[in-house]
Amino acid sequence: MLIEPAQQAVLASFKHQGFPRNMGVSIVALDVGRCVLDPFADAASQQHGFFHGGAIDALADTAGGYTAMTMVDGGRGVLTLEYKVNFLRTANGTLLVAESAVLRAGRSVIVTHTDVYALKDGQRTLCAAMKQSIIPAPTAPAAEWP
Amino acid sequence: MLIEPAQQAVLASFKHQGFPRNMGVSIVALDVGRCVLDPFADAASQQHGFFHGGAIDALADTAGGYTAMTMVDGGRGVLTLEYKVNFLRTANGTLLVAESAVLRAGRSVIVTHTDVYALKDGQRTLCAAMKQSIIPAPTAPAAEWP
Amino acid sequence: MLIEPAQQAVLASFKHQGFPRNMGVSIVALDVGRCVLDPFADAASQQHGFFHGGAIDALADTAGGYTAMTMVDGGRGVLTLEYKVNFLRTANGTLLVAESAVLRAGRSVIVTHTDVYALKDGQRTLCAAMKQSIIPAPTAPAAEWP
Amino acid sequence: MLIEPAQQAVLASFKHQGFPRNMGVSIVALDVGRCVLDPFADAASQQHGFFHGGAIDALADTAGGYTAMTMVDGGRGVLTLEYKVNFLRTANGTLLVAESAVLRAGRSVIVTHTDVYALKDGQRTLCAAMKQSIIPAPTAPAAEWP
Repeated sequence: MLIEPAQQAVLASFKHQGFPRNMGVSIVALDVGRCVLDPFADAASQQHGFFHGGAIDALADTAGGYTAMTMVDGGRGVLTLEYKVNFLRTANGTLLVAESAVLRAGRSVIVTHTDVYALKDGQRTLCAAMKQSIIPAPTAPAAEWP
Repeated sequence: MLIEPAQQAVLASFKHQGFPRNMGVSIVALDVGRCVLDPFADAASQQHGFFHGGAIDALADTAGGYTAMTMVDGGRGVLTLEYKVNFLRTANGTLLVAESAVLRAGRSVIVTHTDVYALKDGQRTLCAAMKQSIIPAPTAPAAEWP
Repeated sequence: MLIEPAQQAVLASFKHQGFPRNMGVSIVALDVGRCVLDPFADAASQQHGFFHGGAIDALADTAGGYTAMTMVDGGRGVLTLEYKVNFLRTANGTLLVAESAVLRAGRSVIVTHTDVYALKDGQRTLCAAMKQSIIPAPTAPAAEWP
Repeated sequence: MLIEPAQQAVLASFKHQGFPRNMGVSIVALDVGRCVLDPFADAASQQHGFFHGGAIDALADTAGGYTAMTMVDGGRGVLTLEYKVNFLRTANGTLLVAESAVLRAGRSVIVTHTDVYALKDGQRTLCAAMKQSIIPAPTAPAAEWP
């Protein structure tokens, strides 16, 4: 993992966010246009022993956002405008992994794609696919929405 | 709040789900075709003191799912097929509230709409709007996806 | 219908677009933040005598875009970043009507909501609901995507 | 192109649908889980000489639906539950091509992915990406929505 300015900004952001950390998320891989997030702790368990949809949502949204952030100059943050997720299979496993990539990085809008996999006994299963629109955050704290 | 069979099924499901409970979610109102979920605990704080998108996602998805569940016979569960969320304003406040309603309840697909509000100083601000497609879960545990 | 600059820009754009005109679309109502488009001609018929999904898509996308355009200064055009549509009921009728409204108009992103109704024997039925993200077009012709 | 029962059903459906034919669409390739649709006639021209978003919408929705239809037994039709499209670049070209594939074919829900390209001077450019949820149609004509 290269530690370039954009990556450092991601790591700094990650360190200060209560939400992903409290869910037990850690960053596995981080490159320009790519981010892999890894496992949720017990907090993410589902009623049948499967991962809860809300955990998948939050993980995918976070991974996509960090991926977009690697494309933004000067350590600025990003805001999610919207995303859509299709759930494809039961998330049955002991770990969740989200893999994000940039589909299109425009000047003012970045579109990402994220696949979420469940890992069980060394096998990984595609459980959800997300597309997300992101914009660079205003330089001021995000009090005003774009 | 009427405690009818469908509502009881929702409450039983809620009691057994690690994810929403661990995030400090509680059910404020529950009727046929309607569910209001309320506040995330500190786990949901965002880096600028605003609520994290992942918290909004998970809350909206959960509220929509419970709303759909009130339309399903016999205490069966539900599965989220897909949803899409548009973020409309910064979620700046001390509480989040999700209000869901059923837009269309077909025999095999239920479409819900959920608005998520941030509460601050007695004011509420619409921060996100979600539409979600839900299907009744197979009667067997959800090992097989529809 | 007030003919203010933004409305004039919409009407001028409409006049020059081959696609909606060739499908028989006309503008029924046009105000700031609101647009109603009306009926497709025979071109939009579906195989069972119902309206084709593609006609609903195109009508909703167009109505939302014109609605957003009424919020943009100086007769600039708009670009659709994304939209999502849920189909709710069979579009069985003799006319289609799309009603759009602005959900949130930010400086750089406008979010619209559009309902599409089928009209039959004086009754109207909600068939589809769309949410759409729009941005003002660059002042130059849209050769470069944002 | 193999002419198996599912493909025959697609071709028969295509022949009876006024909408895609009137727009000048033709089927270029058709296999189980894959469909390529090709060019719109002049009807699809956009105001700057680019393709209109509504044409891209309708083409993508149609291509995804036919792709799903190749997975359904006995020549039954399909219904689109929902789709979402992200527009990625200006659709500048002389032809549009939509390429669809099945992402997940469950018993009751089929999820497709479609990429839409603009062709110009022998180059193709990815302009839009869509994900779509489809269900097999009831055997009776689609008067009742699922």
